[in-house]
Amino acid sequence: MLTSSDVQILDERDPLSCFHDKFELPAGVVYLDGNSLGPLVRGVAERVRGLVEDEWGKRLVRGWMDCGWIDLPRIVGDKIGRLIGAAPGTVVAADTTSVNLYKLLSASLALRPERRVILSDFGNFPNDLYIIQGLIAQTGGAYELKLVDREDVSASLDENVAALVLTEVDYRTGYRYNMRELTDKAHAMGALALWDLCHSAGAFPVDLDNADVDLAVGCGYKYLSGGPGAPAYLYVARRLQDSIKPVISGWMGHEQPFAFDLDYRPANGILRNVAGTPHVLGLAALDTALDVLLEADLAQVQEKSLQLGDLFMNLVEDQLGNFGFIPVTPREWAIRGSQVSFRHPQGYAIMKALIAEGVIGDFRAPDVMRFGFTPLCTRYQDVWRAVTILKSIMEREAWRDPSYSRRDKVT
Amino acid sequence: MLTSSDVQILDERDPLSCFHDKFELPAGVVYLDGNSLGPLVRGVAERVRGLVEDEWGKRLVRGWMDCGWIDLPRIVGDKIGRLIGAAPGTVVAADTTSVNLYKLLSASLALRPERRVILSDFGNFPNDLYIIQGLIAQTGGAYELKLVDREDVSASLDENVAALVLTEVDYRTGYRYNMRELTDKAHAMGALALWDLCHSAGAFPVDLDNADVDLAVGCGYKYLSGGPGAPAYLYVARRLQDSIKPVISGWMGHEQPFAFDLDYRPANGILRNVAGTPHVLGLAALDTALDVLLEADLAQVQEKSLQLGDLFMNLVEDQLGNFGFIPVTPREWAIRGSQVSFRHPQGYAIMKALIAEGVIGDFRAPDVMRFGFTPLCTRYQDVWRAVTILKSIMEREAWRDPSYSRRDKVT
Repeated sequence: MLTSSDVQILDERDPLSCFHDKFELPAGVVYLDGNSLGPLVRGVAERVRGLVEDEWGKRLVRGWMDCGWIDLPRIVGDKIGRLIGAAPGTVVAADTTSVNLYKLLSASLALRPERRVILSDFGNFPNDLYIIQGLIAQTGGAYELKLVDREDVSASLDENVAALVLTEVDYRTGYRYNMRELTDKAHAMGALALWDLCHSAGAFPVDLDNADVDLAVGCGYKYLSGGPGAPAYLYVARRLQDSIKPVISGWMGHEQPFAFDLDYRPANGILRNVAGTPHVLGLAALDTALDVLLEADLAQVQEKSLQLGDLFMNLVEDQLGNFGFIPVTPREWAIRGSQVSFRHPQGYAIMKALIAEGVIGDFRAPDVMRFGFTPLCTRYQDVWRAVTILKSIMEREAWRDPSYSRRDKVT
Repeated sequence: MLTSSDVQILDERDPLSCFHDKFELPAGVVYLDGNSLGPLVRGVAERVRGLVEDEWGKRLVRGWMDCGWIDLPRIVGDKIGRLIGAAPGTVVAADTTSVNLYKLLSASLALRPERRVILSDFGNFPNDLYIIQGLIAQTGGAYELKLVDREDVSASLDENVAALVLTEVDYRTGYRYNMRELTDKAHAMGALALWDLCHSAGAFPVDLDNADVDLAVGCGYKYLSGGPGAPAYLYVARRLQDSIKPVISGWMGHEQPFAFDLDYRPANGILRNVAGTPHVLGLAALDTALDVLLEADLAQVQEKSLQLGDLFMNLVEDQLGNFGFIPVTPREWAIRGSQVSFRHPQGYAIMKALIAEGVIGDFRAPDVMRFGFTPLCTRYQDVWRAVTILKSIMEREAWRDPSYSRRDKVT
């Protein structure tokens, strides 16, 4: 049975412990929801203040050039690229994950005009399915969204599939796909592979270029700590960039945005996928947050993330074995993201009780309690404390308080 | 001939003069480019600081509900609605103008399935044309973009036109369309009218509901002063809201975003047009800037804007009559936006010289010098000073300095 002092030692030996102080975490909070909204990174507030007061306030419109605002989609994209194994010039930061998924999916269908199936899995984040459904409806139903169980994905790849659209890490269970294997299989069947990295980037190394992934999208506000509603990003493999015809062909993706020609001509390379005017405030926050993340060794980040998950699962098993928590996150490191989840029939009320006591996790319908680890700021002692508080709640049955049962978003 | 003291009197009599101090304008700058990027409004820096440090930093993910982030698209949309004659529940703030135009144009084509023409004019902001072209390419060329001169727009509306897509105020000349008349004509021919309000909102009253406009879009960063790359907005007339099927059908437009159903079901009303996660930082800045704008009487704002324009044109005519400036902005108030523009063969170099001396205007290829008036912060004496400095530049020929001829964006 692990003790509190064992856990203390884990923190002492943690090669990433110095990163804890680079986050602005409120006192008394154990934050295990960085996979929904990453915490504030030190330096971001100052950067945003400078952007608003000094750049916008004093340079005014000149900031687009003088302060490099115009380059932020590319600069931030390249920084994200370093976290996801993408060479410079293959990622841009822009828009939302939804819009980026729409853009790339639409472009990918155009690359496989004779194929009619978009393949995904039942566990995919529903938003991704909604985007696919909307695009299909727009084409008058010219395509079919085929949803299968995750174990059937590989076998369902056939010569009808235009694009395989998956989220690498399941938002509820934390199950992690083998991206390389499925991408290879998709290619063998002539399909394109489009990966959603929302629950991947920043939590463990992703290797897009080496895995020969075609297209990818992801958000800026989870492990990347870009702030609420931070700009998202998209990746297009270099070999495909010239064949992508942007469907949302905005001026910032034009070869010469300020020539004001009447005809759209896409810029070379990844930049054609930037549509409208960049969201400078959000990009600046994300840019500074990334600088901190890029100081860390991502292999160490992943190792710690998985160790934190092991500790959490072990402690729940040891100390809360009789309280009905059903682990749904794989034990195996090779197929796990940076979270652990448990099903519990009263999961909603229990999570609300936890949050009331300062342990912030997340709940995902119908009954999943989700605890995410931002390895740079989460300590082993935080996991210990979370489980200790969870135990005390279960023993006191605070979660039976009727005020914990009202259903809205648990935050 | 007007004198400096005449101009002084105009400022003294200005009922909006108290607004000047609500903007953070750098000393020594005459800012006549608020139609490209609006200046920083007092209170915005503080709001953004609070959002980053107190809301994101301390409330973390709970901010979505506790701090009302989730409601910002609707709240900010309703505030913009008050500036453009749109009832509550008909506007949301989200994405970029490009993305919003794409969304609404695509939806409008679906409402006129038997029609194949999108009508616009050669003077439209090229980005809007690019978006139309991209959408047409996506349909495999199923539609035709018909561009005509502005005086031919009305006569070109026929039974083949699915949508009329115009920017109310010409970004170069400042010419302002009669929105109501053209909307009526579009409707008489069975077409939908989609207006871009980028150069309208906040500078003069727009009357969308009363003009029976179908759809509209606009940006948050010009007269609305939402900051660089501020979120944009879109309007859908109440009578059309249920028939709009969002093509970018993201979770934030879902009837129940947090139910995580596998099937997309659009929310009722305008909210279905919100796609991805809202850009909270940008929305917060815009929200606070709008509060100041909403304190003003828009009829007074328009009156002052036109008076500023008259003064500018008169002074150029009086004092710079021999220097080759060709006014391209209509004199008539009824057809003028909130800017004045002049063509000049050396316009690029002259604008650069002006900016170097603290008079910030804008240049639009091939030869248009553009001066925009943000009536709440621009004073008559600013116009006087701008023309005085312009005159001294022309007399000294500072603009012949070779460093003023290098062509990049003039900012």
